Amino acid sequence: MPTFAALALLLFAAPAFASTHDPSGPVFLSLAVMLLGAKLGGDVVMRLGLPAVLGELLVGVLLGNLPLLGVTAFEALRTDAFVDLLSRVGVVILLFEVGLESTVGQMMKVGRSAVAVALIGVATPFALGWGAAALVLPSASPAAHAFLAATLTATSVGITARVFRDLGREQSTESRIILGAAVVDDVLGLVILAVVSGAVAAADAGEGFPLADAGRSLFAAVAFLGGALIIGRYLPPTLFGFAARLKARRVLVAFGLIFCFLLAWAADLVGLSPIVGAFAAGLVLEDVHTHDLATRERQNLAHLVEPISDFLVPIFFVVMGLRTDLSMLASPSVWVLTLALVVVAIVGKLVAGLGAFGKGLDRLTVGLGMMPRGEVGLIFAGVGATLTLRGAPVIDAKLYAAVVLMVIVTTVITPPALAWSIRRRAASAPTPSA
Amino acid sequence: MPTFAALALLLFAAPAFASTHDPSGPVFLSLAVMLLGAKLGGDVVMRLGLPAVLGELLVGVLLGNLPLLGVTAFEALRTDAFVDLLSRVGVVILLFEVGLESTVGQMMKVGRSAVAVALIGVATPFALGWGAAALVLPSASPAAHAFLAATLTATSVGITARVFRDLGREQSTESRIILGAAVVDDVLGLVILAVVSGAVAAADAGEGFPLADAGRSLFAAVAFLGGALIIGRYLPPTLFGFAARLKARRVLVAFGLIFCFLLAWAADLVGLSPIVGAFAAGLVLEDVHTHDLATRERQNLAHLVEPISDFLVPIFFVVMGLRTDLSMLASPSVWVLTLALVVVAIVGKLVAGLGAFGKGLDRLTVGLGMMPRGEVGLIFAGVGATLTLRGAPVIDAKLYAAVVLMVIVTTVITPPALAWSIRRRAASAPTPSA
Repeated sequence: MPTFAALALLLFAAPAFASTHDPSGPVFLSLAVMLLGAKLGGDVVMRLGLPAVLGELLVGVLLGNLPLLGVTAFEALRTDAFVDLLSRVGVVILLFEVGLESTVGQMMKVGRSAVAVALIGVATPFALGWGAAALVLPSASPAAHAFLAATLTATSVGITARVFRDLGREQSTESRIILGAAVVDDVLGLVILAVVSGAVAAADAGEGFPLADAGRSLFAAVAFLGGALIIGRYLPPTLFGFAARLKARRVLVAFGLIFCFLLAWAADLVGLSPIVGAFAAGLVLEDVHTHDLATRERQNLAHLVEPISDFLVPIFFVVMGLRTDLSMLASPSVWVLTLALVVVAIVGKLVAGLGAFGKGLDRLTVGLGMMPRGEVGLIFAGVGATLTLRGAPVIDAKLYAAVVLMVIVTTVITPPALAWSIRRRAASAPTPSA
Repeated sequence: MPTFAALALLLFAAPAFASTHDPSGPVFLSLAVMLLGAKLGGDVVMRLGLPAVLGELLVGVLLGNLPLLGVTAFEALRTDAFVDLLSRVGVVILLFEVGLESTVGQMMKVGRSAVAVALIGVATPFALGWGAAALVLPSASPAAHAFLAATLTATSVGITARVFRDLGREQSTESRIILGAAVVDDVLGLVILAVVSGAVAAADAGEGFPLADAGRSLFAAVAFLGGALIIGRYLPPTLFGFAARLKARRVLVAFGLIFCFLLAWAADLVGLSPIVGAFAAGLVLEDVHTHDLATRERQNLAHLVEPISDFLVPIFFVVMGLRTDLSMLASPSVWVLTLALVVVAIVGKLVAGLGAFGKGLDRLTVGLGMMPRGEVGLIFAGVGATLTLRGAPVIDAKLYAAVVLMVIVTTVITPPALAWSIRRRAASAPTPSA
């Protein structure tokens, strides 16, 4: 314990030593603090029977709000561009890992459920959200109502994927339906975002409805997913067959990451979230493709990605927590709007769970798994903040604060709610065979 | 092959798709291109019997100089802050890995040789460099001569460590002497840099010699290394004993990295290179410390760090190559100075190899292993470029170009020269038992 007290003292005194001769010096302190915090936070919540990811998020919230307590040592973490990008690499690695543990065939089995869940899970929060926003904020523009509604359609599957994995249930039907629905959801959310922002821009310019933009977005998204499935059949055998002929050692991890990063980038290019590309990359990379290498390197790609994931994934969840500015809670009007958005966000996705079908399936677990908005909701709100209508931003500072709080609440309540729901089923029903 | 042609076309056409909605999109393309280039480059040079690291450097040089051929697709890579910091994390991981493969006891055995090699390897290039600079550039200030000489004292051990590992010789006496000497060298280089820049600043202000600054730097550096050895005896058992009691799974990698990053940051804090801290962290983390975890997690830390190293280390070497601006070769005066600096850089460190002693030891291999200046030399030149004497920078654009070229040449010739020297010995002498 004295060692830890000394370590804690050192960490908090650290910024006093201003002069560093290498730009990476402070980065190493940030990484060490985030990893240590993530492990300590994970340990505390796990002792309470909750998934580790919640502890990582809460440690992030704590680190991000230390300035409120007068401790400014880690203030820079929240806006650090390197930490931000590294966390995005982290969530891409997480979805790649999740994808590696599934196959296209398994996803196809849950395809119809996934599409139904996604459609209901986009339509319901959008309609309810528009209504709730109009009710709570009658003075705001219809564009603002539509944008608030659009932020409610997003699903950020990173947290859900992590909870299922923390509980050893990533192979369950519910987990697959949610992952599939999140992919469809990302496509639909993209179309809605394109339509709403196009409509706002057209209204601001006094023009008509931009149907062409919406059509183009939908086409790009569908083409990407179709393309990923086709590429998945032909590229990995070529890529890994080629890698197997290389003289260089330890090529399996490198080629797995190359494929993952290329698809993450391609997804972003067509306007989808990079995590959709990473998930698709993991999904299509079945073991058969890496077989030539596996016999030589005697290791499985999913297993090799684990240490990279152990390093980068906690960084992502700590950063998600870091972004939470608790000082926004000072405004009462933010509370009312936040409450309305949170209710719609939860109800809208719980209803979506009803779209899932299959024997012994738990629709409540599916609905709860669709709840977190995470970084996708934040991206939508960010777009709304940059759009203007008659000179004023569509999403102003208070609306933005309410959206951020809604994202936080849906993100923070998901791990315990989902863990409770999964355990409840596991206790009351026989475990399906793996 | 058509798949690869399509992939290549896609990569080069990529920047045409300007709009991306996530800031991480282009990052994933950069990472994929660097990793793919590193593996392809490594394969080509390995077929020629050279270490893979040379191929990674040359692919970096190629990517960095595509603008000279009119291809601007990857121009941003050279100055990308994220890629730069990620590459610094990469070299820290490499030295941590190298440190994990050694123990304090093994390093102590070569201690006297390492100190002798480092002392000669700093004094010789400094004296010869000052003389050569005064001879080639009689019109430049003594401050410039001293600074050019100082850049020649640095040793960047990353490349050497990698070559020894590529050839499976990281456990050899020569490898240990070089690593030990590099640590001592970093301390001495730091003192020289502090003395020279202090003298320039004092001369510019019309003051006397800053002996106090030099003393303080030396004290900080020695205190760090002594501290690391003491911390290494007490902190890891506490840290890993604590980690073993955590509920969180897969904690071994996280706690290894936390320790590595804390020491990298602490090294930077006292003015040493972060890689010295990372090497010290790996060195003191002997398996006995992680034993409690190892029995539960059934894996060895060095083995778990491998995939992280497979991901990040090639990024470092590609970035080292990227920095090489071949257009500087257009100036003849740069050539003359570069030639003088290169000769002194090589001769100075080959002489240093004579300081090594031990039965069956190859002093030529030790000398060749001390040659690369890498990023340490570039840091020194960067400091010189920011210092001014009577209004003009001490190291102007041309001197800087010559230093950069000297760094490149010593860095690029080391892998083949070292590989040749190691193989020559292996062929003529019986292999020592592992």
